[in-house]
Amino acid sequence: MSKRKPLILVSNDDGITSRGIRALVETMHQIGEVVVVAPNSPQSGMGHAITIGNTLRLDSSIAFEAEGIEAYECSGTPADCVKLAKHHVLKDRRPDLVVSGINHGSNSSISVLYSGTMSAAIEAAIEGLPAIGFSLCDYSLTADFSHSLDYVKAIALQALSTGLPANVALNVNIPGKDDGPIKGVKVCRQAQAKYTENFDRRQDPHGRSYFWMAGDFVDLDKGEDTDIWALRNGYVSIVPCGFDLTAHHALAALNQWSL
Amino acid sequence: MSKRKPLILVSNDDGITSRGIRALVETMHQIGEVVVVAPNSPQSGMGHAITIGNTLRLDSSIAFEAEGIEAYECSGTPADCVKLAKHHVLKDRRPDLVVSGINHGSNSSISVLYSGTMSAAIEAAIEGLPAIGFSLCDYSLTADFSHSLDYVKAIALQALSTGLPANVALNVNIPGKDDGPIKGVKVCRQAQAKYTENFDRRQDPHGRSYFWMAGDFVDLDKGEDTDIWALRNGYVSIVPCGFDLTAHHALAALNQWSL
Repeated sequence: MSKRKPLILVSNDDGITSRGIRALVETMHQIGEVVVVAPNSPQSGMGHAITIGNTLRLDSSIAFEAEGIEAYECSGTPADCVKLAKHHVLKDRRPDLVVSGINHGSNSSISVLYSGTMSAAIEAAIEGLPAIGFSLCDYSLTADFSHSLDYVKAIALQALSTGLPANVALNVNIPGKDDGPIKGVKVCRQAQAKYTENFDRRQDPHGRSYFWMAGDFVDLDKGEDTDIWALRNGYVSIVPCGFDLTAHHALAALNQWSL
Repeated sequence: MSKRKPLILVSNDDGITSRGIRALVETMHQIGEVVVVAPNSPQSGMGHAITIGNTLRLDSSIAFEAEGIEAYECSGTPADCVKLAKHHVLKDRRPDLVVSGINHGSNSSISVLYSGTMSAAIEAAIEGLPAIGFSLCDYSLTADFSHSLDYVKAIALQALSTGLPANVALNVNIPGKDDGPIKGVKVCRQAQAKYTENFDRRQDPHGRSYFWMAGDFVDLDKGEDTDIWALRNGYVSIVPCGFDLTAHHALAALNQWSL
C-alpha cells in the first residue's frame, strides 16, 4: 500500500440517509479517502438486481457535505451503484476497497442471496475489487452501531494491508448491541438454512386481497463452523463469498444423463 | 415416479404474457399437470430480489384459460412467485418439478447472478424442489422457440425420472434459432466472465441527465468445459447451480488474519 490515503468506495442497500451507511462512512473516513455512491431509497431484499429495462438517475448528494465527503445518490439498486461508481463516477480512480453497509439486519446464511448489501460487494468482486459487506444483526432503523465500529475498522484495515483472495467478497455479520459482549471474530462457511414463508393475506379498503411476506428462518445446519453458529455464540462472522454458482460435485451425476 | 401425471410449477421473469413462458407451458402440458405462477410485468435483471418492504398482489390469470391450465399472476419478483406458489397456491400439492423460462436471452456465465429466471429456479432448489431454468440465446420479444422445445422436454423428462442432486438447480441455455443446428447437450461449469459497463448519459426534456446501462460481455475464460464455450460451439449448455456462496478455498487464507 502506498503512502497516499487508500480510496474507499462506500455503498449500501438501506439508502444514503440510513444510520448504517453514516456509521460506515465515518469509520472509513478515518482510514482513507471516501467516495459514496448509494441508493436514494431503501433497496433491502433487492438481491443482485440491476436496472436494464429502465433509466437511472445519479445525482450529487449533500448527505456527507458537512464532512467534505464526495457523495452521490442513485435511483437504482446496490449493484447499479457499484457499476455506476466504477464506470462513471470513479473511472480512472481505482478504489483500494469497496465496502457496503452497515446493513440494518443480518445477512448471514441464505440471506446473502437476497441481500442488496452483499450484491454491492459481490458486484465489486466481479469487477476485481477487494470488497466487504458489513451487516449488524439488528433490523431497527434506530440500531446502535457503536460497538461494531472497531471490528469494521480492523477488518477493513486488514483487507487493505493483506488484500483479499481473488473473486471473493467478504460477508461480515456483527451481533447486535443487545446480544451481549462480542467475543471475537470467526471465519466461517455459510450455514445451510432457509425461510419458511407465511403469507399474511389482507383486504385493502377496496375489497381486493393483498399479501405481506412474512416467515421464519429455519437453521438446517448443525455445524459449528457456520456464520449462524458464530453469531449465536457472540462472534463476528466472516464468510468469503464467491460468484461461481457451479455445483462442481453435481457435474459427474449429470454427465450420466442420456440426452 | 407414480403413474399420476407429475405436477409441474412454471414461472419466469419476462412476465406471464411472454412468448417464452407460453412455449414452456405448452411443452410441460404434454408431460404433466401444470400450474403457472408468474410475474404480471417484466422482471428481467431482478436477480434474487424479494418483496419485503411492500405488499404483493396475486390474482387468477386468464393467460392459459383456453388450455384449461391453472394460472396466477403476481405483482412481485420471480423469487416471490415461487415462494407464493409453494406456500400459498400449492400448499400441500408438492410439485415434482419447477421450471422457469423460457427466458428471452442468455443466462449463461455471470448472467446467472442477475437473472430473474434463474432466481425462480434457485428459490425452488432452496425449498428442496427439483428445478430448472431455461433460457434461449435470443433477446427478441418475438424470438422463435420452436427448435428448443425438444431439448426442453427431454431435459424436463430426464429430471423427472432421475431426480436432481440436492441443493442444485439447472441453468439450461439454448442457442438461438439463427445460430445454426444444435449439435447436442453439454454439462458445463459457469464461465468466468463479466460485463464492462458503458453508461449512456442523456438529457431528459427538462434538462436533467439520466443514464441507460449498456455494456459488453467479456469472456475471461479459455476453458472448453464452460457454458459459453458450449453455446458458441452449437451445444445446449447445462450448468448445475448451487446456493452456497462460500468460497471454501479462501477460508485458510482468511484464518491467517489477526483480528
